[in-house]
Amino acid sequence: MPAGFTPRPSLGVPPGPGYPGLVAYHTTLDRATGAAAAAAGPYGAWSVERRRDLLHACADALEAARAGLVELAGAETHLTPERLDGEVTRTTGQLRLYGDHVAAGRHLSARRSAGAAPGGADVWTIDVPLGPVAVFAASNFPFAFGVPGGDTASALAAGCPVVVKGHPAQPRLSRRIAEILASAIADAGAPEGTFGFLDAESADGDPNKLSIELVQHPVIKAVGFTGSLGGGRALMDAAAARPEPIPVYAEMGSVNPVFVLPGAIAGEPGREQWAKTLAAAVTGSGGQLCTKPGVVFVPDTAEGGALGDLTEQLIAGTGPVPMLTAGMAAAHRRWSEKAAASVTSPATPPGEQEADSRSGRPFAVRISAKDFTGDYREEHFGPGTVIVHADPAEYPALAQALEGQLTATIIADDAADTDRSAARELLPSLVAKAGRVVWNGVPTGVAVVEAMQHGGPWPATSAPWSTSVGTEAVRRFLRPVALQGVPADLVG
Amino acid sequence: MPAGFTPRPSLGVPPGPGYPGLVAYHTTLDRATGAAAAAAGPYGAWSVERRRDLLHACADALEAARAGLVELAGAETHLTPERLDGEVTRTTGQLRLYGDHVAAGRHLSARRSAGAAPGGADVWTIDVPLGPVAVFAASNFPFAFGVPGGDTASALAAGCPVVVKGHPAQPRLSRRIAEILASAIADAGAPEGTFGFLDAESADGDPNKLSIELVQHPVIKAVGFTGSLGGGRALMDAAAARPEPIPVYAEMGSVNPVFVLPGAIAGEPGREQWAKTLAAAVTGSGGQLCTKPGVVFVPDTAEGGALGDLTEQLIAGTGPVPMLTAGMAAAHRRWSEKAAASVTSPATPPGEQEADSRSGRPFAVRISAKDFTGDYREEHFGPGTVIVHADPAEYPALAQALEGQLTATIIADDAADTDRSAARELLPSLVAKAGRVVWNGVPTGVAVVEAMQHGGPWPATSAPWSTSVGTEAVRRFLRPVALQGVPADLVG
Repeated sequence: MPAGFTPRPSLGVPPGPGYPGLVAYHTTLDRATGAAAAAAGPYGAWSVERRRDLLHACADALEAARAGLVELAGAETHLTPERLDGEVTRTTGQLRLYGDHVAAGRHLSARRSAGAAPGGADVWTIDVPLGPVAVFAASNFPFAFGVPGGDTASALAAGCPVVVKGHPAQPRLSRRIAEILASAIADAGAPEGTFGFLDAESADGDPNKLSIELVQHPVIKAVGFTGSLGGGRALMDAAAARPEPIPVYAEMGSVNPVFVLPGAIAGEPGREQWAKTLAAAVTGSGGQLCTKPGVVFVPDTAEGGALGDLTEQLIAGTGPVPMLTAGMAAAHRRWSEKAAASVTSPATPPGEQEADSRSGRPFAVRISAKDFTGDYREEHFGPGTVIVHADPAEYPALAQALEGQLTATIIADDAADTDRSAARELLPSLVAKAGRVVWNGVPTGVAVVEAMQHGGPWPATSAPWSTSVGTEAVRRFLRPVALQGVPADLVG
Repeated sequence: MPAGFTPRPSLGVPPGPGYPGLVAYHTTLDRATGAAAAAAGPYGAWSVERRRDLLHACADALEAARAGLVELAGAETHLTPERLDGEVTRTTGQLRLYGDHVAAGRHLSARRSAGAAPGGADVWTIDVPLGPVAVFAASNFPFAFGVPGGDTASALAAGCPVVVKGHPAQPRLSRRIAEILASAIADAGAPEGTFGFLDAESADGDPNKLSIELVQHPVIKAVGFTGSLGGGRALMDAAAARPEPIPVYAEMGSVNPVFVLPGAIAGEPGREQWAKTLAAAVTGSGGQLCTKPGVVFVPDTAEGGALGDLTEQLIAGTGPVPMLTAGMAAAHRRWSEKAAASVTSPATPPGEQEADSRSGRPFAVRISAKDFTGDYREEHFGPGTVIVHADPAEYPALAQALEGQLTATIIADDAADTDRSAARELLPSLVAKAGRVVWNGVPTGVAVVEAMQHGGPWPATSAPWSTSVGTEAVRRFLRPVALQGVPADLVG
């Protein structure tokens, strides 16, 4: 894609049958899957350099449309322009990074066992794409986990056509991004069907039905999903029941426990710093992040109490934050009211519901370790968190009682021997439960890098051995093939 | 394990409750799974060097018992002593190789992104075991895919306790091997429950029920299986239906198509060589190998006819071969009779059933490409193959119409341009269908090496991105964890 790319004027036209110029853009399941099946062979045979160029072209096209996309996303998500602008940058960087990754051959397992086969033939591996991938756009990251997000980028980088289902809460943005990608991908010369897009509404208006039909379509060979446990499980069940079962890479969230050790908050500056950091992580983006700290364990000491007070006040003091949908705002209100009712005297009552039905009032509930049961262990999607006052000696046992997590965090005084020895004892329990362990930070802000592991044991994800963020995400859509004695010049 | 290890005398005693000295040997599901759950943490924390030593100790113990094991296996499998002796060597080599592999850290993804996290922290990965693994011993390789086989070796190497279910056709051998492994593992100091063994018969005598119960037991975190499509699918369905779905690594076989190009058989010496090689691969081990060439495509020319004649004669001339079970012998007889009846005049009739109900008479059926439909495309487990006479120009289309395969093979004249160009055209179709492509060899004889890929698209396996043979098999039982800013001295 040349620098200074400008989307063609026709891209403003709403999509539909015969939409001009968008050869890879399909609005019905049969058209999209049929075209993807036809594209799988030719696109899978593309060189890694061509795939890189295609991904860069997608990034360039999104960049060129940045201002309009941020505006459209703001209208449909209520996220701030700053957040959305940063997310576009992350998304275009991700597309380029994954393209560069495969062009450099870093996605290849490239194993070779010289003379190892019977008769002395060499055995070596190549990696081939699985075939068409179904991608489900998430609502909370309309770019980075949306239509042009990590699943789309990694599947295209792997050489797999994608069929993306837009998110029903963002119909206009999803379509607009699909138009831009489809055009860029067509201009890059990719076969028709390399990129397909499905509006969230199926012909009969049932988006869940469309999702299941897409996962069960025989040409689909893998699924990428970010969303709720219920949604992910439904797709997994559908995939497992197929005549040919296929893998579902579902990232379904977690409570992301944070364990605060005493040394980190022994002094007032430490308490203040961590209270601010935690409150920002709980309320940022309306708390609608799969890595939001949903449970914070603090020492059952005076200092822990002070940290809890300050964190709670900062959270409550943030004021109402816009949420993605009215449904999420209502769910947050119900959660806050139930949480408040379950403690004898909440320090800060959740307050009356805001006039704006799409806003949520940030809220922290504070409980003791013995009350950390039931709903408090479940993910809550919104600007709320559970502060648990506990004996730090009990942290390992509390960690072990948690379900699988995307992340677990330790906040400690780097220089304090007592914190270090407590952390050493706690770490195995966190490693056993989480896909990422954070030290003296917050779990939000997932770096898109080679070493990132955005995954974790069930129910955080369906495939704990995989990551949905970082360059290793590409491997989800590849399989190795061993070549035994095959002359190399016949393979290239 | 010191050199010159001798199994303790008590190992000759039949196992049972309170069996002395075998702390890790359990005969009921609850005992085995409970102990495995308790062992997962402590054994998972073992150093890679200790795990290597444990695997070497298992190999040493099997070596020390080699003669008796080969004899026992011969009685229960009817495989030849030579074949079984070689298989013991392969199995002990495999145990040692996987131990060496993890001790050298070659199983680790070891990704590091310096300064990549928010705030400039490093992100790096470690790899942790999934937890207890259920292993189902296969009947056709009583050692290499049996109780001490690749799934057991790779799970133990990964740091996972195993609960192995013996194969019902080999009750005495399975138990005997379990005793030897349990003793070696206990002597190596492993926690009780690191190795558990279940007799194939459950309390109420239904081995399938026991299999499902094992897969559905909540402490089990992954499954290794080699066997039939029906058996593998039943385990997959049970695993997918769990409250916490778990991965099933099932290798379920294939027809392993062989494509013979004209140049390779233009002369009589080539025809003779390949006819002998193919006949041996079809009839060796009673044809009871998941990599047996089950379909051989030969040119529809005079030379192809001559190759077919010779191969068929050599196969039929092999004489009856002992089979693993009477059931398999009966299935082979049914297959042969049906195949013979479906062709107008079989060159060599399958003959009367042998007096020995556990033997099978090798048989090749010859058909033309237009008749290559239905059952001919299904795996047949036994000393039989389908020789398909076809126009080599049609090979790519014939390959594309096949289901997923463990292997696909090209036999060609290395020096003939026409063969090389035909192979170049055929290769993409084979790579798209198979986990391993063999050039001028036969698919039997799977080398246990780093670059081996023993897998393939459905229905050959449940997880085409994994291998059940070779050191990469260890990765099936690991998941990465990213550490963000965690001080390295707290991790070791």
